Amino acid sequence: MKVCESLHIAAVYERAARFDVISNQFDFLPLTYSRLVATPVVTTVHGFSSERIVRVYRAYDDVAHYVSISDSDRHPDLTYAATIHHGLDLGQFTPGAGDGGYLLFLGRIHPDKGTHLAVEVARRTGLPLVIAGVVHDEGYFRALVEPHVDGSRVRFVGSVGPTERDRLLGGAVALLHLIDFDEPFGLSVVEALAAGTPVVATPRGSMPELLRDGVTGFLVRDADEAVAAVGRLSAIDRRDCRRDAESRFSAARMVDAYEELFERIVAGRS
Amino acid sequence: MKVCESLHIAAVYERAARFDVISNQFDFLPLTYSRLVATPVVTTVHGFSSERIVRVYRAYDDVAHYVSISDSDRHPDLTYAATIHHGLDLGQFTPGAGDGGYLLFLGRIHPDKGTHLAVEVARRTGLPLVIAGVVHDEGYFRALVEPHVDGSRVRFVGSVGPTERDRLLGGAVALLHLIDFDEPFGLSVVEALAAGTPVVATPRGSMPELLRDGVTGFLVRDADEAVAAVGRLSAIDRRDCRRDAESRFSAARMVDAYEELFERIVAGRS
Repeated sequence: MKVCESLHIAAVYERAARFDVISNQFDFLPLTYSRLVATPVVTTVHGFSSERIVRVYRAYDDVAHYVSISDSDRHPDLTYAATIHHGLDLGQFTPGAGDGGYLLFLGRIHPDKGTHLAVEVARRTGLPLVIAGVVHDEGYFRALVEPHVDGSRVRFVGSVGPTERDRLLGGAVALLHLIDFDEPFGLSVVEALAAGTPVVATPRGSMPELLRDGVTGFLVRDADEAVAAVGRLSAIDRRDCRRDAESRFSAARMVDAYEELFERIVAGRS
Repeated sequence: MKVCESLHIAAVYERAARFDVISNQFDFLPLTYSRLVATPVVTTVHGFSSERIVRVYRAYDDVAHYVSISDSDRHPDLTYAATIHHGLDLGQFTPGAGDGGYLLFLGRIHPDKGTHLAVEVARRTGLPLVIAGVVHDEGYFRALVEPHVDGSRVRFVGSVGPTERDRLLGGAVALLHLIDFDEPFGLSVVEALAAGTPVVATPRGSMPELLRDGVTGFLVRDADEAVAAVGRLSAIDRRDCRRDAESRFSAARMVDAYEELFERIVAGRS
């Protein structure tokens, strides 16, 4: 049941007059209170758990100020006030030299994420692969990933904390992000950039927004192109990756973008 | 998900200024919108699906106008504006002569409802029993009820519609309602009264409120007392049962009670 959730939402709205703006990061339910207060509500759409939920977003489109987390994630039926990409605490990421000599897969082990393609690309390039992440599809892992894990050419290290993640990213020659779905945002992609590590990714979902093709990585359509891209990694200056993370994916930049939006909305109402 | 439910609730609150009072028969979620509008909200508590939900009712106790469906169903932590018993459309119930010569069980087949006790009491009184209702506990039905069903001394007729229910009630010498839980309200009990049929019931939950012991039925503590009560049914005037239903459990009486409450609340605020 939604006991705690609804009490939490109500507590904010009952104090609405104290706030210039209410920032909703809490899905659709807060929208249904939003016409009952004068305070503007900014709703960041973190994804639609089902098509049924879009109905609520549509019903409040005229009063809502929607924020998309990437341009690619915008729903055609909704009006958006801004796209604001996620920002990282860059202090958690150290620019690395990529001197571990391995390719890295970082994320959930699931067909959507293309773990098996990373294995294939690593094998064909002759580079070792490190796989880090939680197994999200056990059958997929057993059938298409685990048989290749040998502890040297392909290593599986499971879930990693921030320190180990930073070390793994910094040592990787590239992150392989060969997704097979329209990912709304790729946190591991911008984390790699923050560590100075280029990314080889499929141009689906938010990837063309997050990566500068040929500058911070390569957008590739299949395993053949991914293999070729790994061969051209020396063309990427790792400092450009880190610089791009600093200018486009820092927490400070995200906060500035939200503040600008809030100010614009408040000014528009006065 | 609560997509339709929350849109429905919001639609009422967004039009709150058009109403003198909002009557909420829709559980806890509407409470969480109630401080955001000036219109008073009257909430009928039809039961607490879990103790966690009481937390929401408690949080709105100061502004809510709670209606209990019986005095017995009041929660000690809450403040109530009124108890309003359910009302029946009495046109659906014909005063019957009880000339079928059988006892009746009407309700869910479940240990809480004492179906097995009705079987025992019927057997000991030598009267046939008709069991009508949906099987809610299959194991219980198979073990303790079905073995006694023989099509003559004990008949099981399953779920019945309004016409068949009226006929069954009117022909019964009594309804056996030997419950083993604190039932907040017993619809089948007042339906029996509407058909002129006395009720033999355990004095739990709302039963002492719904029945006038010795006038419209008997309150009994166990099977022995139930058997004795069946022996005294000739002391009950079936017209008293119908009259009690007419004066205390009609839809018109329920509507009057709600109107009085609404008027009292509106007057109290002006």
